[in-house]
Amino acid sequence: MKVPRGFKAAGISCGIKEGAEDLALIYSELEASAWGLFTSNRVKAAPVLYSRRKLRRGRARAIIANSGCANACTGPKGLEDARRMAQAVARTLGIPEGEVLVASTGVIGEPLPIERIEAAVPELSRSLSPEGFEEAARAIMTTDERPKIRWASTSFGGKEITVLGIAKGAGMIRPNLATMLAFLVTDAGIDPPLLRGLLREAVSESFNRITVDGDQSTNDTVFLLANGASGPLGEGGMGALREALKEVARGLALEIVRDGEGATKVVEIVVRGARNRRDAERAAYRLAHSPLVKTALFGSDPNWGRFMVALGDAGVKIDPARVQIRIEGLPLVKDGVQAPEFDEAKVRELMRRDEFRIEVDLQLGEGSFGLFTCDLSYDYVRINASYRS
Amino acid sequence: MKVPRGFKAAGISCGIKEGAEDLALIYSELEASAWGLFTSNRVKAAPVLYSRRKLRRGRARAIIANSGCANACTGPKGLEDARRMAQAVARTLGIPEGEVLVASTGVIGEPLPIERIEAAVPELSRSLSPEGFEEAARAIMTTDERPKIRWASTSFGGKEITVLGIAKGAGMIRPNLATMLAFLVTDAGIDPPLLRGLLREAVSESFNRITVDGDQSTNDTVFLLANGASGPLGEGGMGALREALKEVARGLALEIVRDGEGATKVVEIVVRGARNRRDAERAAYRLAHSPLVKTALFGSDPNWGRFMVALGDAGVKIDPARVQIRIEGLPLVKDGVQAPEFDEAKVRELMRRDEFRIEVDLQLGEGSFGLFTCDLSYDYVRINASYRS
Repeated sequence: MKVPRGFKAAGISCGIKEGAEDLALIYSELEASAWGLFTSNRVKAAPVLYSRRKLRRGRARAIIANSGCANACTGPKGLEDARRMAQAVARTLGIPEGEVLVASTGVIGEPLPIERIEAAVPELSRSLSPEGFEEAARAIMTTDERPKIRWASTSFGGKEITVLGIAKGAGMIRPNLATMLAFLVTDAGIDPPLLRGLLREAVSESFNRITVDGDQSTNDTVFLLANGASGPLGEGGMGALREALKEVARGLALEIVRDGEGATKVVEIVVRGARNRRDAERAAYRLAHSPLVKTALFGSDPNWGRFMVALGDAGVKIDPARVQIRIEGLPLVKDGVQAPEFDEAKVRELMRRDEFRIEVDLQLGEGSFGLFTCDLSYDYVRINASYRS
Repeated sequence: MKVPRGFKAAGISCGIKEGAEDLALIYSELEASAWGLFTSNRVKAAPVLYSRRKLRRGRARAIIANSGCANACTGPKGLEDARRMAQAVARTLGIPEGEVLVASTGVIGEPLPIERIEAAVPELSRSLSPEGFEEAARAIMTTDERPKIRWASTSFGGKEITVLGIAKGAGMIRPNLATMLAFLVTDAGIDPPLLRGLLREAVSESFNRITVDGDQSTNDTVFLLANGASGPLGEGGMGALREALKEVARGLALEIVRDGEGATKVVEIVVRGARNRRDAERAAYRLAHSPLVKTALFGSDPNWGRFMVALGDAGVKIDPARVQIRIEGLPLVKDGVQAPEFDEAKVRELMRRDEFRIEVDLQLGEGSFGLFTCDLSYDYVRINASYRS
């Protein structure tokens, strides 16, 4: 693990979840440029409402996050609790309250056990270290099976910058973020306005192109902190940072799909030839969200009729007689009917892989969109029928 | 079973599905007023395209339907096969080809074994009898566990009219019809223009208010035939027919949800207080289609946070702080947070029932909408991961 200069992190158990890490802290020794993107669900958790406001200044030094309780649908007390989380960190680290960002994930509607969090912050702060990102990644997990952590370093003009990110995902993952938290940090130096553009671009090509079950949570949050510990970016630095950021964000996004609730495989869905990009995006998501498509993926069943049904039902322009569908290059549908060279056994074999690609060509225009999704398995039902018990 | 005068039906096995009934015929001794409603999926099966055209005249005498093969995504040969199904019936029964309607359900993309159907039509016709509706209902089943048949009789002014319907459902059920076939017949006498309005109204309050998995098929079809064998409707007859028709349609629609793939319970979702009816409808369907809500229903888990997530993500206006949610009258959410009197154990107990009602009040306006759906269980995944094998 390569950690950007001037950043530390920690993860400990404060007693929200029995016997598991549930409280994470990320700290920058220098004041950092900061930005965040949040859920577009109209029901927003308290920490989302709180942090969005704090980010207006574009500066931050710390992120505190808990799992086990979403602090969502908790009314004025929830907002007060989010503020108290920030205050506890500010007090202990001796930084302004306004420079602490807050995130939560877990069960909706239950009050945050704020006293436990407050009591644990001093120990959490003492645990801060550059190596602490692994524990932090562990502490934000809910139904995730694995902690998610990615980093990338890049050099230009004799200077090196590093981007590191941690994330949690699992269920409720879909466009415009999801019950997904991702915290990205870099030692690059960049002003807030430029930082915003970079984050938006990286997210649109990563976290906004994945979907597990089409449900979008109240708590989705992506933070990016850039503390400039590697000095000013200078010429060529912007492009290098952009690429490193995208690499980390894409890596985390794919990890989230791979670790989707009950997922047994990752499927890339690419729609081309749509009337426009928006149609391509809608068609791709309609395929990715169709339970009949998702169960066919689970069953490795090249039941292409279900793909046709989803396409016809996507609310976009299609001409059934022009539709082409391929899996890993092998034709299933040609001009809306079964391709003459369709080899069911061969396609089934390909669909048994951990990862494969479905390509749809609508042959109507230039619009295209690609995303990553996973299948719908018994385990998805098991996990979600008993998540709280 | 009470069969409308002048109607007969039959169901036999013609060899599309091994050892099971797969071919149904309904026949009216008199020429009947007829109308149909079809899938709004842009990919439409051949029998849908065929029958829609034939119905322009508003008259029919027979319906032939097969299960086991959808005759969808089958190109020009599919259309020709649909026509040959109608021709075989017309020939055998000595009626005009234009008065035979066609429907199919089953696997998409495979060619119809038309020769088997043609060879079986004479035997099918010989089997016609008023009692044959049960076999017909059986012959249109796919993953349905039970045949679906309903009837209602009503008297007015010394006259009696009867409505009878058969249906199949199971998966891919959602608004604007679904892989759903429903054939309704009545001995009432009514002109085609009036018949259309009646059918539209009955469907909007029945088949268009149910959803299993949000997938809409290529083959959805509802036919209504009214042969007038009970004489002209006369005064008071229109209202009586309307009610009988609604009763039968609603009964069949509920049967379809009850028998949804893997369904263990039927849940009525009512949204009130939306800005308008459209918002209420979208919110209700968002709840009904959320995999996280559906698995919570399966697990009898009063995890109301998931309902809030779905509402916030429905693309309709909501004010989270006004939302009220009740299950069977017991409060879960009040003003967007957990109701003070929320009794988790009691609500969980109610959710273990076969049927219960979720009521949402958005407290914003007068829009309301109700629908019926089912849960998402292990069996849904099992059935759909292996439907073709």
